[in-house]
Amino acid sequence: MSSKITWPVPDPAAPPEAHPALVSAALSAARAYGEARAEHTRGELAESSRTGADGTATMRVDELVEGAIADTARRHRVNLLSEEVGFVDNASALTMVVDPVDGSNNAASGVPLSCFAGVMVEDGVPTEALTCWLDTGRCWHAIVGEDTAYRTSGRTELDGAALGLLRPHPEIGRSWWHLAERAERVRVLGTTCLEAALVAEGSFDAFVDPGNDAHRIVDLAAALVMVPAAGGVVRDVFDRPLEIDTDLTRRWSGVVAATPELAERIIETVRG
Amino acid sequence: MSSKITWPVPDPAAPPEAHPALVSAALSAARAYGEARAEHTRGELAESSRTGADGTATMRVDELVEGAIADTARRHRVNLLSEEVGFVDNASALTMVVDPVDGSNNAASGVPLSCFAGVMVEDGVPTEALTCWLDTGRCWHAIVGEDTAYRTSGRTELDGAALGLLRPHPEIGRSWWHLAERAERVRVLGTTCLEAALVAEGSFDAFVDPGNDAHRIVDLAAALVMVPAAGGVVRDVFDRPLEIDTDLTRRWSGVVAATPELAERIIETVRG
Repeated sequence: MSSKITWPVPDPAAPPEAHPALVSAALSAARAYGEARAEHTRGELAESSRTGADGTATMRVDELVEGAIADTARRHRVNLLSEEVGFVDNASALTMVVDPVDGSNNAASGVPLSCFAGVMVEDGVPTEALTCWLDTGRCWHAIVGEDTAYRTSGRTELDGAALGLLRPHPEIGRSWWHLAERAERVRVLGTTCLEAALVAEGSFDAFVDPGNDAHRIVDLAAALVMVPAAGGVVRDVFDRPLEIDTDLTRRWSGVVAATPELAERIIETVRG
Repeated sequence: MSSKITWPVPDPAAPPEAHPALVSAALSAARAYGEARAEHTRGELAESSRTGADGTATMRVDELVEGAIADTARRHRVNLLSEEVGFVDNASALTMVVDPVDGSNNAASGVPLSCFAGVMVEDGVPTEALTCWLDTGRCWHAIVGEDTAYRTSGRTELDGAALGLLRPHPEIGRSWWHLAERAERVRVLGTTCLEAALVAEGSFDAFVDPGNDAHRIVDLAAALVMVPAAGGVVRDVFDRPLEIDTDLTRRWSGVVAATPELAERIIETVRG
């Protein structure tokens, strides 16, 4: 009964000032995803044949999109650090840190919530980030040290907040539910990069992994640039340093929040 | 700190064969929503000054969009049954049953998941439905008795299913969690009409209100046409008949599922 996803994938509306390698990578990702949807059924997009560099199964949709991005990185002569392939050395001081398809399950099933997210890193230091919502072409861009057009909500209190939460895993049920009870609104979109972008622009007050250690650095790298530029913070529930590392098996429980105060309230609640 | 939502709202891509009153209403809704976003901050869009016909607070965004739809209904000389205003008699045998902004909280905060949903009803019997995702212009259309281009996933088992769930209310925590534990994937999008459309096209296996009685008939009317046309079913957890009624204070706990078998598994689990 598995069918194709019929809606087309638009080219991303990346801003002209973004780094050419990021713009090309986002465009390649969107086109490869569009072709994958046209050629494969939902079931085929979700099939996995191997384990990626991050230690999780690689879906066909991830593989096809990452392949297109790897070609782009080679053409632009920048290194690549990506979910499935790991670190690809193209002999550059610049590395593009990428989540090719954030929200792979959504992307494979046709839930229109999946993103390309890329960060330029120069000698280990992030310089700019681009997140593109693949299903709509909408993009968020930020450069370290420069103001962005969007601002977080500025909220400091957890009670009454609008939260994006990681999906409810049984192991973290208690802290998940504590957050849900204190929040005014809860959403579970299944795409960290889009949820972080919604925090950056003030539509969510925060996005939280309540202790499940589901986040790899590729999931959080764009937020590390974009959210502070908009007035917010990115932290780990267990206060481990968030750093770009080529070891993609490392995990964090990310808290992306409108303000440092709100992040603190959330972390207290999860640690309970 | 409340800011405006800067992304534009496109005209909906309604199919040419849809009823002209539905197409006009969807277009009016999208344009009114776009103007509301351009003129008002998030905080202003969420402000409510009165109680609607459904017994809940009317947000400014609901009021502005519904006003535009009411003008359209008058111009097309069809009656209107809508969330805030209730039943408007324009002396026709046709009634347009509308949820002007499904996902009002998303619409007011800038979470890009809100819909117009309308159903044509002739002497009490639904004939066709149109759901338009306001943030992207994407539409789903179905005519009673005619096949649709999309099909549900066909899934019959709950274990391993991909579910959309109503947001977790404390009163229904137990059944909410039971469903979440048996599902493979859980999403909470906060917009029943979009979640029902995703069931119709096979991206979600089901969407469920696990006993919170949050659904009014305007939330479920489009699903009642669209989901059976795609092979699925719409039921109430407590087996109350789902019927078009001008009393908008009536409530249901809707189960929108890919198959009758899956709906039955979900209802058993909630009643548990």
